[in-house]
Amino acid sequence: MTTAVNDLLEAHPAPAEVDRGALAACIEECMACAQACTACADACLAEQEVGTLRRCIRTDADCADLCETTGRVLSRQATVDIDVAGAVLRACAAACSACAQECEQHASMHTHCRLCAERCRTCEAACRRLLDSLADG
Amino acid sequence: MTTAVNDLLEAHPAPAEVDRGALAACIEECMACAQACTACADACLAEQEVGTLRRCIRTDADCADLCETTGRVLSRQATVDIDVAGAVLRACAAACSACAQECEQHASMHTHCRLCAERCRTCEAACRRLLDSLADG
Amino acid sequence: MTTAVNDLLEAHPAPAEVDRGALAACIEECMACAQACTACADACLAEQEVGTLRRCIRTDADCADLCETTGRVLSRQATVDIDVAGAVLRACAAACSACAQECEQHASMHTHCRLCAERCRTCEAACRRLLDSLADG
Amino acid sequence: MTTAVNDLLEAHPAPAEVDRGALAACIEECMACAQACTACADACLAEQEVGTLRRCIRTDADCADLCETTGRVLSRQATVDIDVAGAVLRACAAACSACAQECEQHASMHTHCRLCAERCRTCEAACRRLLDSLADG
Repeated sequence: MTTAVNDLLEAHPAPAEVDRGALAACIEECMACAQACTACADACLAEQEVGTLRRCIRTDADCADLCETTGRVLSRQATVDIDVAGAVLRACAAACSACAQECEQHASMHTHCRLCAERCRTCEAACRRLLDSLADG
Repeated sequence: MTTAVNDLLEAHPAPAEVDRGALAACIEECMACAQACTACADACLAEQEVGTLRRCIRTDADCADLCETTGRVLSRQATVDIDVAGAVLRACAAACSACAQECEQHASMHTHCRLCAERCRTCEAACRRLLDSLADG
Repeated sequence: MTTAVNDLLEAHPAPAEVDRGALAACIEECMACAQACTACADACLAEQEVGTLRRCIRTDADCADLCETTGRVLSRQATVDIDVAGAVLRACAAACSACAQECEQHASMHTHCRLCAERCRTCEAACRRLLDSLADG
Repeated sequence: MTTAVNDLLEAHPAPAEVDRGALAACIEECMACAQACTACADACLAEQEVGTLRRCIRTDADCADLCETTGRVLSRQATVDIDVAGAVLRACAAACSACAQECEQHASMHTHCRLCAERCRTCEAACRRLLDSLADG
């Protein structure tokens, strides 16, 4: 999908002055992480021991919302506001970190938690990389 | 990304009794289409002749919202409600169709509209295929 | 809040040719219902007998997503597409109906389910009223 | 609407240990602000001088997304993560501030920009009040 996201970023008449590769990667990871979190929450809900997965379902829901919103904000390249973009990326990284930490505790029991934790860690890293490149810019 | 979406669908303890391939493809297309629509709306907004792209920006916004919601609803496999799933898919297909029709009129002028129109048509087709498989199920 | 929603609808330079009162009411109910569903899902998740509330948490999540998207689409008055608006309203009404039906079964046990069921029924009615007025238009 | 939001917060079996009034007010303002931003963006898009309102449409879109996500995260009282809640509130306040600043420049020309700017300022204040109360807690 990187190609599709990249192609659209490049077709913009006034592209953002940021590291294009870091931007495309972060948008992509946000989308993939949002989907993984929604799917993981629903899978947790269907597990027999749902009572031990309450916190996981909650962090999944927050993380899905943050990732989706971050992917949207980053997809808008015109007139980027660095303050807003930075704050959104920090919030997304915080949600990914909290969700990964929780999912990792169930990773050995549930494949969906393991897959979701991996996505959260990758997305958190992509957010931090883009944050670094914004700070350098 | 199909792999990631598929892996999560398969990790569900009580997977939906639907055509798994059609489901994964539809979720994936909804995500890609939502991103394309958000990016296209922002690119349209930055074009000099923004005045002729008002309808495009609006259909992009509706389509992004519908695709995102449809991707979420479909990612929840537990206790699927066929009435709701069907109505959501029909609404998503309608939004994709309206957006594609509008974007196609600007496709020769703007690469982002051409790319977005293609995504909308692919997503519309994926929604209809899943609708057909729900009707057969 | 009706006042706020109404004031903004009236400030639009090219307002939609629909029953303004029905439109404002529907937007408002969608927002209130989305919030109620998110809050109810989280409250269900914290109940001791979460195992019996799985379906409720799921229908809450779908309904919150549909209501939010419907509120957004309806808030965009320029160049309304009746096909899309109609399909979205039908999907929202279906999600509200499914969620109300589920919440009503727990209404005597849980105040949050009772409050949420009431919101869902009111929102469903507002969607159907607006659908009727679109058909007459 | 405060009543409705409050009633649901109170019906939660394990309510968050935060200032309930500040929480309810913030959720409510997030919802109202999200709707105002979506309506303002669409109204801007329909104005003749849309070319001068590009930045306004963009900040509206970001602010709507952030407010909606913040309203959702705050509506989930179980197992609150202060780090995530704080980061989300800061991101929302930043988006509200940026949007208010932009809308205020068009407030004398367009009623929708004036109404939206007011909502953004109120929402920003509600986010900061809740942030303060979290820091005290």
